[in-house]
Amino acid sequence: MTVANKNARPVRAIIYGVGEMGAIVTRLLVERGVDIVGAIGRSKSKVGRDLGDVAGLGTSLGVKVEADAKAVLARGADIAIVCVGSYLENMQGHFAACLENRVNVVTIEEETVFPWTSAPVLAQKLDAMAKANGVTLAASGAQDVFWLNLVTTLLGASHKIDRVEGHSVWNVDDYGPEVARHLCIGMPRAEFERHVADNGWPEFVARQTLEAMVSRLGLSAADISSTVLPIVADVPIACRALGTEVAVGSLIGTMDTTTLRTVEGPQFEFRMAGRIHQEGESDSNTWRVHGEPDLHLQNDNVPTRFITCSTMVNRIVDVIKAPPGLISLDMLSSPSLRSHLIV
Amino acid sequence: MTVANKNARPVRAIIYGVGEMGAIVTRLLVERGVDIVGAIGRSKSKVGRDLGDVAGLGTSLGVKVEADAKAVLARGADIAIVCVGSYLENMQGHFAACLENRVNVVTIEEETVFPWTSAPVLAQKLDAMAKANGVTLAASGAQDVFWLNLVTTLLGASHKIDRVEGHSVWNVDDYGPEVARHLCIGMPRAEFERHVADNGWPEFVARQTLEAMVSRLGLSAADISSTVLPIVADVPIACRALGTEVAVGSLIGTMDTTTLRTVEGPQFEFRMAGRIHQEGESDSNTWRVHGEPDLHLQNDNVPTRFITCSTMVNRIVDVIKAPPGLISLDMLSSPSLRSHLIV
Repeated sequence: MTVANKNARPVRAIIYGVGEMGAIVTRLLVERGVDIVGAIGRSKSKVGRDLGDVAGLGTSLGVKVEADAKAVLARGADIAIVCVGSYLENMQGHFAACLENRVNVVTIEEETVFPWTSAPVLAQKLDAMAKANGVTLAASGAQDVFWLNLVTTLLGASHKIDRVEGHSVWNVDDYGPEVARHLCIGMPRAEFERHVADNGWPEFVARQTLEAMVSRLGLSAADISSTVLPIVADVPIACRALGTEVAVGSLIGTMDTTTLRTVEGPQFEFRMAGRIHQEGESDSNTWRVHGEPDLHLQNDNVPTRFITCSTMVNRIVDVIKAPPGLISLDMLSSPSLRSHLIV
Repeated sequence: MTVANKNARPVRAIIYGVGEMGAIVTRLLVERGVDIVGAIGRSKSKVGRDLGDVAGLGTSLGVKVEADAKAVLARGADIAIVCVGSYLENMQGHFAACLENRVNVVTIEEETVFPWTSAPVLAQKLDAMAKANGVTLAASGAQDVFWLNLVTTLLGASHKIDRVEGHSVWNVDDYGPEVARHLCIGMPRAEFERHVADNGWPEFVARQTLEAMVSRLGLSAADISSTVLPIVADVPIACRALGTEVAVGSLIGTMDTTTLRTVEGPQFEFRMAGRIHQEGESDSNTWRVHGEPDLHLQNDNVPTRFITCSTMVNRIVDVIKAPPGLISLDMLSSPSLRSHLIV
């Protein structure tokens, strides 16, 4: 029932961040016919080179990686695909640069999925900035399909829910050194425990995912708590992301458990194990709904890193068409495969 | 992010069809606070009795089951929940009676999921009738969550798809004699094969589901074909739906395979085995996407009969709010659990 728009043209996109994820995104955009009009990077080894070369495409794209983000953004685009880092506090400058140049943003930054309670001041500031400039800031990634929309769609078959339980296992080695260091990979167990006791443990993806889920369901969070347990090497294990070997007794991953109780009663729990996989292990997601009726959903062999990029790419047109502002993931409907990224 | 409407009131609904499915729906609506304003049945054993009694609720609802559909519909309601039978040709009169009385319809009738090619004349006639009366006709059921929207949501993580394969197993015994007779349960194998050779084999749910999926993806069906294979008893097996025992060599089910090739290339195949389950067997759905990347989705222990009703109930507000016309399932976004059925 799709009606072709005769004036439709390919999306004009800027790749903002040319690390491992940015390289995957670049290939996907080229294959979907997107017009890549700029690329922003910070590493001296990449700035000045052609994006196709940096992304390992074996072909030139005629787009140089530039270090001056504002100069690239000022030339204009429909959207910037931002794959730089995690947490809104670290990313606000990058997002603001896009918004101030009236460029929409889609990002894999996890907090932006639902930043209203974990970073309320920043979220409202960016929301206002996006509205003032008539553009949209939104996040996507693995959580969009596998931890949010598959689950809320499954719940479309529920009459009553008492408890929703998710369990996800993903391979830290797929995400580069930034994420591996964030999870304290390689840290001795005792040092990790002191580190958590001294500094607490930042909530990562699970909290925002559960908050988006609860908001989509029209429920209100009463409280959210999380715990972390170390997953420790019992034999020396190579960490590809860090290029080091993890010694026995040091961390090969963490298991975060986030629990959200609602005012209305239903409880949500999401256990996420980010760990270095060994031969034969793969990423998986399991969801169980306890209620009337009980429901079950399982995804095996999930290529989490790839689908983090492909799902975000499928969101590009949704984000361009969304109303201005910071649009958290509860405010969008389920993502769809969009073969043609046109506006 | 749901904003409460202070003028909101419970949905006013008519139960149209008070068989096994209508009885489940009645309980769900009562538990969600829906205002049931009428009930339509045809069986002499039910007409004149209270709906709560007929539905086995153990309580009176103050709503009598009436045989005169038009009289009930003429009194008005927001929506009629129609659980009477299968195929648009058989159901058109029931739907027309609702639409002519300006009552929206949600139904578990399977063809209405995507009737545009299997019953184009009827579909267009009902679409025009709905539009002329400012109301909506739409279908939901198991296919809505488990065979359509979970799959299109999963495909929101795809970059390219080559082939989508679904396999569903469901228990014929859960759906009453109408469906069991439709699948030729109890018929000797040779008679079934003659029957299919002489009469062909009507497409059931799979065709419409795949067509809705392809339409949602913006693809065009090039051709659709289906085959049926008998599933035969190797020991005598009781059929609860028919109250009979199926002899060795007679049908305890059928396996339909529907294949849809698209103009654009991707191919879709859906194998559905409707059969009498034996001890320890349960309904399940498995989907595999072959493409970049490969994707997998599995639902175990699916209470297909119950979720056929609960999913349709979750669609009530969507259907009331949808634009007038026959709204096939590709035209709606993913269903959601709606705790409060208010308009």
